Amino acid sequence: MGSTYGENIRLTVFGQSHSPAVGVTIDGLPAGEAVDMERLRAFLARRAPGQSALTTSRREPDEPEFLSGIKDGVTCGAPLTAVIRNTNARSQDYEAAKDIPRPGHADYTAWIKYGEARDYAGGGHFSGRLTAPLCVAGGVCLQILEREGVAVRARAVEIGGETDERAMEAAILAAKADGDSVGGVVECVVTGVPAGVGDPMFDGLENRIAAIVFGIPAVKGVEFGEGFAAARLRGSGNNDAFAVEGGEVVTKTNRCGGILGGISTGMPIVFRAAFKPTPSIAKEQESVDLGTMRPAALSVRGRHDPCIVPRAVPVVEAAAAIAVYDALLSRKKERG
Amino acid sequence: MGSTYGENIRLTVFGQSHSPAVGVTIDGLPAGEAVDMERLRAFLARRAPGQSALTTSRREPDEPEFLSGIKDGVTCGAPLTAVIRNTNARSQDYEAAKDIPRPGHADYTAWIKYGEARDYAGGGHFSGRLTAPLCVAGGVCLQILEREGVAVRARAVEIGGETDERAMEAAILAAKADGDSVGGVVECVVTGVPAGVGDPMFDGLENRIAAIVFGIPAVKGVEFGEGFAAARLRGSGNNDAFAVEGGEVVTKTNRCGGILGGISTGMPIVFRAAFKPTPSIAKEQESVDLGTMRPAALSVRGRHDPCIVPRAVPVVEAAAAIAVYDALLSRKKERG
Amino acid sequence: MGSTYGENIRLTVFGQSHSPAVGVTIDGLPAGEAVDMERLRAFLARRAPGQSALTTSRREPDEPEFLSGIKDGVTCGAPLTAVIRNTNARSQDYEAAKDIPRPGHADYTAWIKYGEARDYAGGGHFSGRLTAPLCVAGGVCLQILEREGVAVRARAVEIGGETDERAMEAAILAAKADGDSVGGVVECVVTGVPAGVGDPMFDGLENRIAAIVFGIPAVKGVEFGEGFAAARLRGSGNNDAFAVEGGEVVTKTNRCGGILGGISTGMPIVFRAAFKPTPSIAKEQESVDLGTMRPAALSVRGRHDPCIVPRAVPVVEAAAAIAVYDALLSRKKERG
Amino acid sequence: MGSTYGENIRLTVFGQSHSPAVGVTIDGLPAGEAVDMERLRAFLARRAPGQSALTTSRREPDEPEFLSGIKDGVTCGAPLTAVIRNTNARSQDYEAAKDIPRPGHADYTAWIKYGEARDYAGGGHFSGRLTAPLCVAGGVCLQILEREGVAVRARAVEIGGETDERAMEAAILAAKADGDSVGGVVECVVTGVPAGVGDPMFDGLENRIAAIVFGIPAVKGVEFGEGFAAARLRGSGNNDAFAVEGGEVVTKTNRCGGILGGISTGMPIVFRAAFKPTPSIAKEQESVDLGTMRPAALSVRGRHDPCIVPRAVPVVEAAAAIAVYDALLSRKKERG
Repeated sequence: MGSTYGENIRLTVFGQSHSPAVGVTIDGLPAGEAVDMERLRAFLARRAPGQSALTTSRREPDEPEFLSGIKDGVTCGAPLTAVIRNTNARSQDYEAAKDIPRPGHADYTAWIKYGEARDYAGGGHFSGRLTAPLCVAGGVCLQILEREGVAVRARAVEIGGETDERAMEAAILAAKADGDSVGGVVECVVTGVPAGVGDPMFDGLENRIAAIVFGIPAVKGVEFGEGFAAARLRGSGNNDAFAVEGGEVVTKTNRCGGILGGISTGMPIVFRAAFKPTPSIAKEQESVDLGTMRPAALSVRGRHDPCIVPRAVPVVEAAAAIAVYDALLSRKKERG
Repeated sequence: MGSTYGENIRLTVFGQSHSPAVGVTIDGLPAGEAVDMERLRAFLARRAPGQSALTTSRREPDEPEFLSGIKDGVTCGAPLTAVIRNTNARSQDYEAAKDIPRPGHADYTAWIKYGEARDYAGGGHFSGRLTAPLCVAGGVCLQILEREGVAVRARAVEIGGETDERAMEAAILAAKADGDSVGGVVECVVTGVPAGVGDPMFDGLENRIAAIVFGIPAVKGVEFGEGFAAARLRGSGNNDAFAVEGGEVVTKTNRCGGILGGISTGMPIVFRAAFKPTPSIAKEQESVDLGTMRPAALSVRGRHDPCIVPRAVPVVEAAAAIAVYDALLSRKKERG
Repeated sequence: MGSTYGENIRLTVFGQSHSPAVGVTIDGLPAGEAVDMERLRAFLARRAPGQSALTTSRREPDEPEFLSGIKDGVTCGAPLTAVIRNTNARSQDYEAAKDIPRPGHADYTAWIKYGEARDYAGGGHFSGRLTAPLCVAGGVCLQILEREGVAVRARAVEIGGETDERAMEAAILAAKADGDSVGGVVECVVTGVPAGVGDPMFDGLENRIAAIVFGIPAVKGVEFGEGFAAARLRGSGNNDAFAVEGGEVVTKTNRCGGILGGISTGMPIVFRAAFKPTPSIAKEQESVDLGTMRPAALSVRGRHDPCIVPRAVPVVEAAAAIAVYDALLSRKKERG
Repeated sequence: MGSTYGENIRLTVFGQSHSPAVGVTIDGLPAGEAVDMERLRAFLARRAPGQSALTTSRREPDEPEFLSGIKDGVTCGAPLTAVIRNTNARSQDYEAAKDIPRPGHADYTAWIKYGEARDYAGGGHFSGRLTAPLCVAGGVCLQILEREGVAVRARAVEIGGETDERAMEAAILAAKADGDSVGGVVECVVTGVPAGVGDPMFDGLENRIAAIVFGIPAVKGVEFGEGFAAARLRGSGNNDAFAVEGGEVVTKTNRCGGILGGISTGMPIVFRAAFKPTPSIAKEQESVDLGTMRPAALSVRGRHDPCIVPRAVPVVEAAAAIAVYDALLSRKKERG
């Protein structure tokens, strides 16, 4: 289907880069959950562009309007819909992409899938712009989770192959100077999730988190705990020993990333998402004119992020919050 | 929910390691699809244990019985259920695990989630045994896909940190000699998928494949195309240039793993899954007695694989086949 | 979950009677389907209030704004969201209902379910106002279906126990004069559905249609073909004989309402929905003050329809169109 | 999809009349729920044929085997699968139906939908035989519900147009003597459901119950409370007055069938299902030979029920139990 996620809450992210608005509809949110708009705005601001030399100079206010599901700042049990108007769109910047798909983008696959009816302007529904309503949904979930003692924190741990913060920044600026871009890795840690959250097989926490995190544009890999590094360890070096601490079972290490058999151990949930370098670059690239089916050179103009990773950090938090809250609701059902 | 997967076909894998049977129920398979039982048996045999010194000496016949959904060797449109009886179970081998959870296993999380009612014998529903019915479902999908020109091939590309075949084998045998285990990486390539399969955001091919592959026990990471390595490339080095070949749009490289915006480009779909080392090892480990909440040493007895990766290869193919076939059915709906 | 429907298209109806807007989000609509806004408006006008002495004098413009999923009047493959602003709300009319639930309404059950956080004004999410976005979704489906040769037509066949058109009208006016209300029965006929649409058991056409039609406020019964009258026939009098007509299999009668085993026969699909009398009446009724838990008399003020049936006719068409179109998409998937 | 139902528990009914077995797979059942096999057998016996002159003389043992999900008589949290072997099949009785569809049956629509691959013997997946595994699932839910104080009781309230018990029996015997059949109405009452169960719009109790009850073969109408009769009442005569009784809000009457806005009021839930007369009758009927597309007379041989209603009573209870339990789980999630 595409843009719908969740088992206990069901959210659909809608909108295109240049449609009247982007937004999100969430069915299944319990009634009585307060939404602090100031804090939500502050969370959205972390994703917004135009904040520094490291990001695009476009400015989007990202002011969400809640059309339904909220009464006096509290969820009322009915489906919640929030929209963000698209105001600062310079659609002419993207018109070139209509016939000449940008390498690394969904332009070509959207054309194959939807044909001439596709909305190509600015990447349409595939635009990074759609992470704004995802952050609205995630921001609401983060506030609910916080009241249940769950915290979600992400950060960039690698950019352009660098892991030191200054080196990361330098890598971005160097790529920008070259009309190029760099990728990176975001690590996310979720604390306070009680043991027993998640389900076996296809609804494990890993499956649920991966299923939403791969929905963030540019993510090409997701790993939990030691992840790919675990494949190089021996069992004796990877297994986390159990111990008792304060009357509770804990693991002495957390190489499993807080998840065994898809279910939380009670230790922090840890995962990393790999972001490819932003495909929109000023450097000339080889493409094809889909009208004539002949080769065509392409240089992507417009204001683009040389690296999406800094702005992606809150998006990863939002995605994790949604997945974890949805899994928590399943747990409540069993216990209820 | 847990053990249910799919949008257009919906399959539920059922059974525990020591229940009367394991099996799979699939709703939504089209009528008229032939199932070659000989080939299905040959496929299942690749997953079966007892084949060499590299795997456990347990022998399971893995002979599926089709209870419904098949008539004269052809799907009839009704839900398909196939079961494999559990015959070679030595439940006493696992009885020790009842109160002392094995590090790296789901024993502890299952206890927290299901309490005393859990089926602990042999890992219950979390056992690798459950990959047998997954392979039945995947084997059926593989045969259907083959008739549509789609082939799925996986192989171990890394074991115990080694990438050379002999070195991989040596790593397994060395671990076995030490009463230890090793992990590895399986790479899977799906060819013949036409461009345009997959959906945006949460139902992209990456999301769909990750959501099922993380359901294979021991998988801790999934990446597509260059995956985590892409995070270290620049956009100019990671973007795949478009070209025209034989009247069709192709990409000159395939660093995106055949997927852009969640949708197939028509190039091979390539992904890798990281398997942690088998947690069941003979070496003594630290655990906790859940009855007394006191430390307890544990040495996992029984016949276990020193490395699950060789047997996991067909399981990854099965999982990929199910995910790709399900996505293909969505495509047919749009085109119909 | 509540306000989400569909297998192949998934729609969520959102909004409350007095929230900023009501609307609908639809994921899964194929790209390339034209939406004629003039015809959609005309369809919505059939549901709108204020049209005659038979309906409430409130006037709502019901002008939908499409926020996403449409480009140049054609679906683009991305989720479609349409909203209708709530402008003509006189919330003070309903304030009395806050503590004193209106008999026959969801006021009491909403209070029990959502507590103080519920949106009580005008019935909140349970208001008949929510049938407006349902009609937007249905109106889009009706236009698509029409291009596939499928037509959906409903009409009131009984009001206040009367089946003659003038008598129906008289019954409504008499009830209005008494500060009372009447119910009725809407019959819907869907023609042009090819044989073979629908699925066995729980996704038969009957199940699918009932599952959405019971979502229309005030519907308390749904029957297909002869329905409850069939229970009084003998098999020989109820079975529809098969015959060949123009090279096609037809049934000589259509007592089954065009559905056998949940699947369309190719004959018209016929169903009826029973609407209870509008619960909002001026006559004094017995209720309870939920604050004091003491008896309280209630006379519902405000402008209410003495009979909802005339305005419900297009809503039934909309619901039927959504259900039939969703089932048709399943059929395409099988055939693709 | 077809044979899959449920939001919080997800069950798939599988099998054909003459496949090796029929059965049911249920994912999502909480762990720790005891299943009393003796009581389950007794419940299934109420549905079994061969009990009196009023039903077919075929005898099926209906002995369910639990393949998974149960340990020591208690659910263990893993998916539950139960199968009933098909033993007493006389497939030659039905061979005539291969080319000549029985009027009133799904033979023709199955042929259109699945083509030559369909399993025609005994009606295949459309057979009333499939209500046996539905009763296994419902029987398990009934036992869980009972522990929560919920009771489900159905009874035949009308057969062949008669409402007196002796007259009903006489109507069946008269139809049998004529080689004909009669239909009837089953009423079901669910007591003990607390107020607040059910969801708005498309997941109301009415929608959920109708969506499963229309999955019982031969059901052509479902109504709640006064149902179609409510359409003939005035609002003042149909609204249920609220009152306080023992500190709780009750309604003085229960014309709404215990449901307002899709949500339980706390009063008994009351619904009726209309069953058409069994289509399998000895009387000669007009059909078509699908091979030659020429008219063909048909007299259905074999041992058929002259009236399915008596055996359908526990099936309605089973369906209601599944729907109500599934809705109750949603309620727990909100409250958890």
